Amino acid sequence: MLGLQVETNPKWVAAASSHVARVLVDHAHCEMKAATNALSLSARCMLHPKVARALVDLAEEELRHFRRVLDELDRRGIALEPPEEDWYAAELRRRVAGERRGKQTLDLDAVLVDRLLVGALIEARSCERFRLLADALGEVEPELAAFYRELFADEARHHRTFFDLAVDVAGDASMARDRLARIASIEADVVRALDARPTMHG
Amino acid sequence: MLGLQVETNPKWVAAASSHVARVLVDHAHCEMKAATNALSLSARCMLHPKVARALVDLAEEELRHFRRVLDELDRRGIALEPPEEDWYAAELRRRVAGERRGKQTLDLDAVLVDRLLVGALIEARSCERFRLLADALGEVEPELAAFYRELFADEARHHRTFFDLAVDVAGDASMARDRLARIASIEADVVRALDARPTMHG
Repeated sequence: MLGLQVETNPKWVAAASSHVARVLVDHAHCEMKAATNALSLSARCMLHPKVARALVDLAEEELRHFRRVLDELDRRGIALEPPEEDWYAAELRRRVAGERRGKQTLDLDAVLVDRLLVGALIEARSCERFRLLADALGEVEPELAAFYRELFADEARHHRTFFDLAVDVAGDASMARDRLARIASIEADVVRALDARPTMHG
Repeated sequence: MLGLQVETNPKWVAAASSHVARVLVDHAHCEMKAATNALSLSARCMLHPKVARALVDLAEEELRHFRRVLDELDRRGIALEPPEEDWYAAELRRRVAGERRGKQTLDLDAVLVDRLLVGALIEARSCERFRLLADALGEVEPELAAFYRELFADEARHHRTFFDLAVDVAGDASMARDRLARIASIEADVVRALDARPTMHG
C-alpha cells in the first residue's frame, strides 16, 4: 500500500483503539509537526519555488487538521500534554541521513529528494494507520471513525504530493521510484522495531 | 513604541533599504519561523486550549505572509537561500531562559508567559522595522513599501495578541506588564549589540 513494505502489527491497532485519548493527544502533535516540517522544508527549497509553494499549501492543510484535533480534544475535555519525541519519524530521518552521509556526496537536491520521500512514507504510514483505526473504531466511536476515514484520504493525497514533488526535484521519475523503494525498506525496518505503543507512530 | 525600550540604529535602515533582495530572502525565513514557532508553542499550551487555538490562528496568518514573501521573491527572480541563524531571536530566547533558570523554579505557566512575551517583543521589533523600511522605500519601491506598511499593521496586532495571551496565562495583567518591561530591557541590550546587517533582525 502506497509503497509501504510492511504492515502495521495488529497489536498496535488493539493498543491504539483502546487508548483513544492518548492517541488523540499524540495525533495533535503529529499534525503540528507535519505542518512545521513542511514549512521548514519549504524554506530550504532554494531553486525550486514551485515545490516550496506546494509545501506551504500542505503545511496549511496540516494546520487545519491540527485545529480539528484540538477541537476533538476540547469536546472530550482532554488536555494537551507536552510532545514526546516521535521515535519512528526521528529514527527514519536519522537512518536515511546516515546512509546518505556514507556516500560522501553533498548534493543538496539529493538531500531534498530524500526528505520529500521520507515525507511521502510517513504520510503513507499515517494513512495506513488511520484506516486501521477507522475500521477498529467504526462501531464504538462512529464520529471519530469518520474523521479518521477523512484523514485517511487526505494522507493518501499527501503521500502522492510528496512523491510528485520528489520527482520534480529529481527530474527523473524512475530514479525517485527506486529511491522511494530503498527508503521504504529502511522504513519497514523501523516499523518492525516498534513496540505497539498507543501513539500514531508507536 | 509597543513596549520597546530602544530604537533601531539608523545604520540598519540604510543597510536594509539598499539590500532589498537580501532583506526579502531573510524576511521569508522570518515569516516561516514565526509560523513554526507559534505552532510549536501552541502544542505546549496544555491547560490553555484557548491560547493554543489563538496561536494556531496566528501561525496561519504568518503562513500567509510567508506565501506573499515567496510571491515577491518569484516576481523579482530571487532564489531562496538556506536560512541562517536569527541571532537576535535566538539570543533573546537564550537570555530570557537563562534568567529564568537562575531563579530555579520550574513553573510551566511562567515559561509559557515568557515565551509569549518574547513573541510580543519580536513582533514589536518587526513592526518598528517594517515601518522604517516602508518609509525608506516609499519613493523607490512604492509597492514593496505598501506591503511593508500592511505588515506593520499586522505585526502591531500580533504584538497585542501575544501580550493578551500572556495575560490570559498569567491571570494577572500587571504581572504580565512588569515581566514585559523586564524582557524588553533584555531585548534592548540584544538590539544594542546588533551590527546593522541587512536582515530583518540584523
